[in-house]
Amino acid sequence: MEDKHVNNNEKPKDDSQIIAESIGKASLIEPSMEPSTVHKGVYYGSYLELNNLLSLQNLESSKVGKPAHEEMLFIIIHQTYELWFKQIIHEIDSIRSIMSTPPTPERLNGVILNRLKRVTEIQKLLVDQISILETMTSLDFLEFRNLLVPASGFQSVQFRMIENKLGILPNTRVQYQQHHYHSFFSEDDRQKLETSEKQVSLLQLVIQWLERNPFLHHEDYDFWKSYRSAVDQILQKDLERVNNNKDLSDDMKEQAIKDINKNMESFQTLFDEKSYNEKLEKNEVRLTYKALQSALLIYLYKDEPIFHTPFLILNYLTEIDELLTMWRFRHTMMVQRVIGAKIGTGGSSGYHYLRTTVGDRYKIFLDLFNVSSYLIPRNTLPQLPPVVQQQMEFVWQLH
Amino acid sequence: MEDKHVNNNEKPKDDSQIIAESIGKASLIEPSMEPSTVHKGVYYGSYLELNNLLSLQNLESSKVGKPAHEEMLFIIIHQTYELWFKQIIHEIDSIRSIMSTPPTPERLNGVILNRLKRVTEIQKLLVDQISILETMTSLDFLEFRNLLVPASGFQSVQFRMIENKLGILPNTRVQYQQHHYHSFFSEDDRQKLETSEKQVSLLQLVIQWLERNPFLHHEDYDFWKSYRSAVDQILQKDLERVNNNKDLSDDMKEQAIKDINKNMESFQTLFDEKSYNEKLEKNEVRLTYKALQSALLIYLYKDEPIFHTPFLILNYLTEIDELLTMWRFRHTMMVQRVIGAKIGTGGSSGYHYLRTTVGDRYKIFLDLFNVSSYLIPRNTLPQLPPVVQQQMEFVWQLH
Amino acid sequence: MEDKHVNNNEKPKDDSQIIAESIGKASLIEPSMEPSTVHKGVYYGSYLELNNLLSLQNLESSKVGKPAHEEMLFIIIHQTYELWFKQIIHEIDSIRSIMSTPPTPERLNGVILNRLKRVTEIQKLLVDQISILETMTSLDFLEFRNLLVPASGFQSVQFRMIENKLGILPNTRVQYQQHHYHSFFSEDDRQKLETSEKQVSLLQLVIQWLERNPFLHHEDYDFWKSYRSAVDQILQKDLERVNNNKDLSDDMKEQAIKDINKNMESFQTLFDEKSYNEKLEKNEVRLTYKALQSALLIYLYKDEPIFHTPFLILNYLTEIDELLTMWRFRHTMMVQRVIGAKIGTGGSSGYHYLRTTVGDRYKIFLDLFNVSSYLIPRNTLPQLPPVVQQQMEFVWQLH
Amino acid sequence: MEDKHVNNNEKPKDDSQIIAESIGKASLIEPSMEPSTVHKGVYYGSYLELNNLLSLQNLESSKVGKPAHEEMLFIIIHQTYELWFKQIIHEIDSIRSIMSTPPTPERLNGVILNRLKRVTEIQKLLVDQISILETMTSLDFLEFRNLLVPASGFQSVQFRMIENKLGILPNTRVQYQQHHYHSFFSEDDRQKLETSEKQVSLLQLVIQWLERNPFLHHEDYDFWKSYRSAVDQILQKDLERVNNNKDLSDDMKEQAIKDINKNMESFQTLFDEKSYNEKLEKNEVRLTYKALQSALLIYLYKDEPIFHTPFLILNYLTEIDELLTMWRFRHTMMVQRVIGAKIGTGGSSGYHYLRTTVGDRYKIFLDLFNVSSYLIPRNTLPQLPPVVQQQMEFVWQLH
Repeated sequence: MEDKHVNNNEKPKDDSQIIAESIGKASLIEPSMEPSTVHKGVYYGSYLELNNLLSLQNLESSKVGKPAHEEMLFIIIHQTYELWFKQIIHEIDSIRSIMSTPPTPERLNGVILNRLKRVTEIQKLLVDQISILETMTSLDFLEFRNLLVPASGFQSVQFRMIENKLGILPNTRVQYQQHHYHSFFSEDDRQKLETSEKQVSLLQLVIQWLERNPFLHHEDYDFWKSYRSAVDQILQKDLERVNNNKDLSDDMKEQAIKDINKNMESFQTLFDEKSYNEKLEKNEVRLTYKALQSALLIYLYKDEPIFHTPFLILNYLTEIDELLTMWRFRHTMMVQRVIGAKIGTGGSSGYHYLRTTVGDRYKIFLDLFNVSSYLIPRNTLPQLPPVVQQQMEFVWQLH
Repeated sequence: MEDKHVNNNEKPKDDSQIIAESIGKASLIEPSMEPSTVHKGVYYGSYLELNNLLSLQNLESSKVGKPAHEEMLFIIIHQTYELWFKQIIHEIDSIRSIMSTPPTPERLNGVILNRLKRVTEIQKLLVDQISILETMTSLDFLEFRNLLVPASGFQSVQFRMIENKLGILPNTRVQYQQHHYHSFFSEDDRQKLETSEKQVSLLQLVIQWLERNPFLHHEDYDFWKSYRSAVDQILQKDLERVNNNKDLSDDMKEQAIKDINKNMESFQTLFDEKSYNEKLEKNEVRLTYKALQSALLIYLYKDEPIFHTPFLILNYLTEIDELLTMWRFRHTMMVQRVIGAKIGTGGSSGYHYLRTTVGDRYKIFLDLFNVSSYLIPRNTLPQLPPVVQQQMEFVWQLH
Repeated sequence: MEDKHVNNNEKPKDDSQIIAESIGKASLIEPSMEPSTVHKGVYYGSYLELNNLLSLQNLESSKVGKPAHEEMLFIIIHQTYELWFKQIIHEIDSIRSIMSTPPTPERLNGVILNRLKRVTEIQKLLVDQISILETMTSLDFLEFRNLLVPASGFQSVQFRMIENKLGILPNTRVQYQQHHYHSFFSEDDRQKLETSEKQVSLLQLVIQWLERNPFLHHEDYDFWKSYRSAVDQILQKDLERVNNNKDLSDDMKEQAIKDINKNMESFQTLFDEKSYNEKLEKNEVRLTYKALQSALLIYLYKDEPIFHTPFLILNYLTEIDELLTMWRFRHTMMVQRVIGAKIGTGGSSGYHYLRTTVGDRYKIFLDLFNVSSYLIPRNTLPQLPPVVQQQMEFVWQLH
Repeated sequence: MEDKHVNNNEKPKDDSQIIAESIGKASLIEPSMEPSTVHKGVYYGSYLELNNLLSLQNLESSKVGKPAHEEMLFIIIHQTYELWFKQIIHEIDSIRSIMSTPPTPERLNGVILNRLKRVTEIQKLLVDQISILETMTSLDFLEFRNLLVPASGFQSVQFRMIENKLGILPNTRVQYQQHHYHSFFSEDDRQKLETSEKQVSLLQLVIQWLERNPFLHHEDYDFWKSYRSAVDQILQKDLERVNNNKDLSDDMKEQAIKDINKNMESFQTLFDEKSYNEKLEKNEVRLTYKALQSALLIYLYKDEPIFHTPFLILNYLTEIDELLTMWRFRHTMMVQRVIGAKIGTGGSSGYHYLRTTVGDRYKIFLDLFNVSSYLIPRNTLPQLPPVVQQQMEFVWQLH
């Protein structure tokens, strides 16, 4: 229903062509608010649909005639969560849209960066927000908890959509009560979930973008070859240094060589494209081999101008993952504190389910975290050929 | 309109007497969620009215055919603010209601404390939330700013109601554009404001509670007399010590005596009930003389068991004030950063108005802050008569 | 070496009996700072020993002639952690001292509360502080990482002391590299650890305090009996309601009865003192049976005045646990992000060790979290006998 | 004194060429910590100089034989502040050093960005840290407050150095007690302050960098001319639209024209170089005319790839300012709460002095805030000539 605040106050005027229409669009006039203009143009309350918004808090406990003071908080905090989820979806969708637009979506890296940052700022808030819910004591929650059966935060469609749009695959999800997660949603919601599962995820778009990195090969330069030979040299030197060190006892030498061998194995896995691709098929890794190389290139040469924003973007992606995990973790602890983990109900309690979702399994950009393991110190980093480095320049000089 | 999610999915069943009705109210059954129960009973999305909630974001920029990406954030952040304002009002109203219920509202000090704490937790969130809005750049805001004319956050009825319910008086408000703040609201909203101005404010209820403090006088004990004589003695000793100190140069002695005199004057004001009451009438102070004494008593003897929760309550009240001020301050800075303070438009800019609201003028419990000035060190604190102290005891012992 | 700032500036004066000595102690003089007084009395820099403090940042990378910019951050952040750990120990020790002082330590519940709160405020900072370290990229860390071998944050004696003083038992600790945690410390530090292990822990003192709760039995009133009979009644009613409900299908009935039975079992465990004590001996629970009852009494009747501060104290204890866990969790994630979890080095990596410490195993007050599972709704709570309730009163009335 | 932890434990071994020396430098070996290696190489406690660090907390109240529990917090919180100040100086100095290194310091914009971000992360912590100090009550502070006379946080040399290095001029400072701020420092400290005042400030380096912006003029393109003509056109259109609008009453038209005129005046100031330079000489503005234009260019065309990081850098600079102001503000409120603003001591109280420092006067990058006022909407923004825009490209394509 329309908010007819104006009518309450005065009868519609002839100059109903409101000021906003006539002047407001004039672009350099500082919007002013004076009583004479207030009842024309946009009104704060109507713009935000406050009459509607503030009437959507309907307590189940009121319906049964025993209004529980704390249920209001329960509703409002969940509603603010959902509003923020909508905003996060708005941002992710816009980034996905930019990144799907040929030919050079990275032209808008500044915009992408800003929106990813915003997502993390929202996520921080969502994590902190749990402190508010923690002011509700267990005893107070009991006053209305049973009235909500079987509703559960598990059923937040938007949260699941965020996960899907970022790139969580349906089959990585932990089953809840031995059922596919769809089972807990209404038909309408299930359709939304399916749609979001089918869309190109942010992860996929990031992979495509990384694969476009033109610096993996440039004329004679082959990043992967150059990186690999640097790694080999370092490991070789490590080995020599240990072998030539007369101060080491046999035990220590043995241990050191064992460590180096482990290290070599770990890098071996990295350099074996075939076995990497097998992992990819099994979903043990998510970045393609080429995308992984590209990420490594960016992490290692992040100081080159052309990588300044790409590096920041990769960082924000891992931060989004980190904050999602943090949210799950704090949420789990809050549940333990307010609800407890009932002894005897075994693995089926909400608390125990939630614990299983806090881990690497739900990290979308896990491979980016793991890239850290493959970095080599700056002083061992192969020098870039001048012709390549020049292409990466981007400074206060007209070419 | 009803959210009929169930119907989308399956036709209503005979056992439509939902589980919640039949078992859910059984109070010790841990609510479980299984696919078989999901479509009976309460559903997350319907409970939170998500269909409605998530359709209230109507961009002005979309109406004119030029959807501005950032307007979504602008709407959603304001809507979450308003939801939280509703929650704060819910808490303040409940506290006001408890504190108005004779004979011993302080029986529920634990509840009051918890709700005040919750208000501060919400306020912290509201302050932090500004960081999210700060991810919107000035240039992006310009895309839709003029379309909102003349709407303004100034017109948040709920925010004004919070101020009124806490105890801000209409005549302490800074005028905006030389007009009474009512002028900027619709007729409906104006009525809500007036109602909230007429209600007994939290400040008034706090005063009444403080005045009931039975320890101001108890048999022979007179707190005010005892406190006053302690102050006199300290000041007297200060003076003697300075006068007898041969190491002080004349200049230093003079300065020291001047300082002590200033101090004496300051305490004089405190001990002069008549002049205090004059200030009260002029609204320069807000606590009555008796309430001020009671607050001082609590602050000085906060270690006595009976004052543990009262002291915490007074602390949360000042924290609410502090966080309100902080919110105003961060809001002001955000406006400066995103909108700027146009040179030339003078004192009428939003930024300049906002600056005037960040100060003691809007502190409801300012007198509680000032009490700090009148504290005296613990070692100079008059010993309480045993009979009084015993009454303040409240320990792990049955009487 | 003494900070002789005074001498740098002017020769010592005859009135070296500084102002602080002569007047400063006068207790109501507002401390003033004027140039004439600045060089007498306490000086900010000397008071804080800044000359020393700011010379303790000695970079290993500087020693080998290759100063790494980021190592400064690494040192300073750890030094601030250690300063805050000292403060936490200061607070915990003072609380332990108060709680060990007969006859009625709870007289100072206000002080205990305040210091517990401070500990949580510090902990929040320590968690947030990790964000600063996360601005150090993996590549930058590699510049000096190997120079620090084998030093590790694991070796923070103060952090281990905090854990011990709170009540973590040496044998609950996860072994690191199959060794007792002592093995990684110097002899001096090991002695400090042993001392802290032998002290009465905060947990033990909390147990003693809870056991003193005089309301477990009072004349005819027996809390445990009253609580148990309430639980029995509820469960009985649950069962009846299910059995009499004709709308339930056989399947649903069966499931519901199964749920109630699980519930009954869970409460059975609670009511079986013998089996509870067996768990206690195996360290599966940490509160004694009596202390657990006392905690439950406080949680259920938290609205009674005498339980206002005890309830808050129990809450802060669980919050300390929660924040410790949070710190471990964020720390783990930071390690994963900055260092990575090298593929191939298996369970021995720092990351994998850290993950094992984030869980219930390290929760000192885990039993308090679990109490939530045994709460019963307010409307089923047995009414306290008037004579008991009166003893719990603590209101604005002189007896 | 040396920390000889090794000696306490075992006698020095022949293989004192520690593992760190022999293997540690091997760059890909994951540092491992095992008991056998612990007493060789770097030890956590010695590395951080914990023996020294944790012995620098010397309570004045202990010296006079009356240890005040809360003084420990007072010392430790100030020491952590000073450690963080050292870190901030470390970052600012490194940025200043990069920005002073010809020919293309902006090559390292990624590094600059990261360090500026780190400064803001530290600042956020410093603001939040105040919450910890607020757990100290006024009464508790009185126990030792007079012993510290006349020391004051005002005397933090490092804080003043930060201000100076950022670009605060000595003569913009508010006088304290009618004295130059130097007067309150020891001779040694005064010299440090003077040195920092004479150094090239970050502000100056930012100005130099902005002035180098090659896009202000490029062949035929003249940014300032293009921008000015766009502004003129918009204002002209505003005026026409108002004049041609028949729905406006005379009053409204008059008001609208007045608003536009104000706007014109404000822009006039901007376009009048001579009067701008007069303001510059009077320190009313701090950016040179050319630097201001450059900043405006970046803000308006921030979506162009070459401006992605410069825009972020400018943003972090304003954020540093904002967080400094926030710190001053929260500090002021904390002082009011804990100390109070003694009635009668007039403008000389610490609280009143502090209030004067919270404002635009201490904003180093105030001009960047004000740039917002001069932005024009994207759709009115002059199109860049293709040849210019191409130079600003910086995308995933080899040229």
